[in-house]
Amino acid sequence: MNSLDLKEYLAQKGKYVEENLNNILVSKEIYPKEIHEAMNYSVMAGGKRLRPILCLAAADAVGGNSEELIDVACALEIIHTYSLIHDDLPCMDNDDLRRGKPTNHIVFGEAIALLAGDGLLTYAFEVLSKAGLKSNNAENYLRVIHEISGAVGTMGMIGGQVVDIQSENMEIDLKTLEYIHKCKTAALIKTSVRAGAILGGGTKEQIDALTTYAENLGLAFQITDDLLDVFGDETIVGKNIGSDDKNNKATFPKLLGIDKTKEIAQATVEQAIDALKMFDTNSAPLKELAKYLLVRKN
Amino acid sequence: MNSLDLKEYLAQKGKYVEENLNNILVSKEIYPKEIHEAMNYSVMAGGKRLRPILCLAAADAVGGNSEELIDVACALEIIHTYSLIHDDLPCMDNDDLRRGKPTNHIVFGEAIALLAGDGLLTYAFEVLSKAGLKSNNAENYLRVIHEISGAVGTMGMIGGQVVDIQSENMEIDLKTLEYIHKCKTAALIKTSVRAGAILGGGTKEQIDALTTYAENLGLAFQITDDLLDVFGDETIVGKNIGSDDKNNKATFPKLLGIDKTKEIAQATVEQAIDALKMFDTNSAPLKELAKYLLVRKN
Repeated sequence: MNSLDLKEYLAQKGKYVEENLNNILVSKEIYPKEIHEAMNYSVMAGGKRLRPILCLAAADAVGGNSEELIDVACALEIIHTYSLIHDDLPCMDNDDLRRGKPTNHIVFGEAIALLAGDGLLTYAFEVLSKAGLKSNNAENYLRVIHEISGAVGTMGMIGGQVVDIQSENMEIDLKTLEYIHKCKTAALIKTSVRAGAILGGGTKEQIDALTTYAENLGLAFQITDDLLDVFGDETIVGKNIGSDDKNNKATFPKLLGIDKTKEIAQATVEQAIDALKMFDTNSAPLKELAKYLLVRKN
Repeated sequence: MNSLDLKEYLAQKGKYVEENLNNILVSKEIYPKEIHEAMNYSVMAGGKRLRPILCLAAADAVGGNSEELIDVACALEIIHTYSLIHDDLPCMDNDDLRRGKPTNHIVFGEAIALLAGDGLLTYAFEVLSKAGLKSNNAENYLRVIHEISGAVGTMGMIGGQVVDIQSENMEIDLKTLEYIHKCKTAALIKTSVRAGAILGGGTKEQIDALTTYAENLGLAFQITDDLLDVFGDETIVGKNIGSDDKNNKATFPKLLGIDKTKEIAQATVEQAIDALKMFDTNSAPLKELAKYLLVRKN
C-alpha cells in the first residue's frame, strides 16, 4: 500500500463513516423532532471525519478488524461534533459559520443548540456501551470508554477550551499555548488512535508506538490549523479566516512567527511518521495522513 | 426496619454520598482551577441526594452490597447536577437561584458554567467506567452505562427539557405535560433505582418490581414538585416560588386543579409502595421515601 492514494482513501473511508453515522443517529422524524434534527444537522454537515478514520486506520495498523469498530469510530465523531456546537455558542467563541454552513445555534437557536451538544455527548456513550455489549470483550470496551471520557473531560478537551477562552485578549506564553493545543484538539485525536489500537487487539508495544504517533499528529494538526487561519482560503476552510487574529487569540504563528511554526509542523510530522517504523504496510494510511497535514487546505 | 426514621436515614446516607462526592470530584486546586471550582461548587451546593440514595437503597432492597455502588450512585448525582447547571443558563430557564445559592453562571459566567456542565456529564461516564473496571462484572456495568446514557439522552431527560422549553408560553395538553415529567425528571430517577437493582445483583423479577416502583416515584416526585412551586416556602425550597406561573409553564395544578393533583400524587405514591410488596424489610427506606414525597417541603 505504498502507492496509497490518500485522497481516495479519505473519500472512501469518509463515505463509510458518514453512511454509518447516518444509520446510528436517531432519525429526525423521532419526537422531539427538533433536537434530533439539530443533532443530525451538525453531524452530517460534512467535515473530514479525521477522528473516526484515525480510529479505523489504527485498528488496521495493528492487524485488527476495523469494521467491528465502526460504531466506536462514529462515537468519536459524535463527540467531536458536540464540542464544535458548544464552542460555537455565543457565550463561547460566538461563531456563525462552520464548515461553510450556519452554526447550530444560528439555525436552531441557543437552547436547542446547547441541548443538541448535550444530546450528542450523551449519545456517544450510549453508542460506545452498546458496541461493548455486542462485543465479546466488555472489559476492553470499558477501558476505552474510560480513556475517551478522560480525554474529552476537564483534563483534556474541555480543559483546553477553558484555558483557550480565558486566554482571549491576553498575552500567553508558549507553555500555555501548548497546553491548549494538547488538550483542546490533540487529546481526542490521541484517544481516537488509541481506541482503534486497543479494540483492534494491538500489543502494548503497538499501542505505545501509535500513542506517540497520535500525540505528534494531534499537535501537528493544531499547528497547521493555526497556519490555515492565516493562509487559508475561506471558501475551502469553511470558516472565517483571520478569526484568531480578530479574537486576539494566541497561535503558534503569533508567538513564534510563520517560519518557525512551519519548521515545528514539519518536525512534528516527521516524529509522527518515525513512530510508525515498527508497522508493516497496513500503517500506510496513518503515514500518509501525517504527511497530508503539511499540505492541507482545510 | 419498620420503625425506620427516614429523616435520620436520609441525613446519614446523604452525608455518606457527599463525602464520596467530595473524594471523587477533581480538586479545585487542579489546573485549570476555575472549571473544577465551578464543578465542585454546584455538586457540593447541597440538595437531597435523592438519586444516589435511591440507587443505594435499591441495591439494599435486592440484598446487594450497596457500598460497592457508591461511585455509581455519585455518578448519578453528578449527571443530575450537570442538568441543573445547563437548565439554569440564560438561554434555557434563566434562573439565578438554586438551592438557595446563586446559580453556576451567576458565579462563574456563562462560558464556564456551560463547560462545567459538559465536564460533569463527561466525568460521570469516567467514574462509571472506572467503577466497572474495578468490578468483576464488566458486562453489567456496560449495561448500566447503556441504560443511564439512554435515560438522560434525547429520548429521556434531554428530550423532556426540549419539550419543556418549547412549551413555555403555550397551552399544552396533559399528554405533553406527562411526557415532560416522565422524561425530564422521572427517567433519571428510574435509571438510578434500576442501576442499584442491576448492580446489586437483583433477579429479573426484583428489577421489574423496582422499575414499577421507580416509575411511580418519579412521577410523584414531579407532581409534588409542581405543588411546591405553588405552596412551597422559598427559604426551604431554595428556589424562586411561583416561577412556573411566572414563566407560564404548564403544571399539573394548572391543568387539573389543586385537588385533583393532590389525588393523583396520593394514588401514584400508593402504586409505588404497592410495587414493593415482594421485598422484605430491606425495602423500608424505599417505602418511606415514597410516602415522604406527599409531605415534602423541598
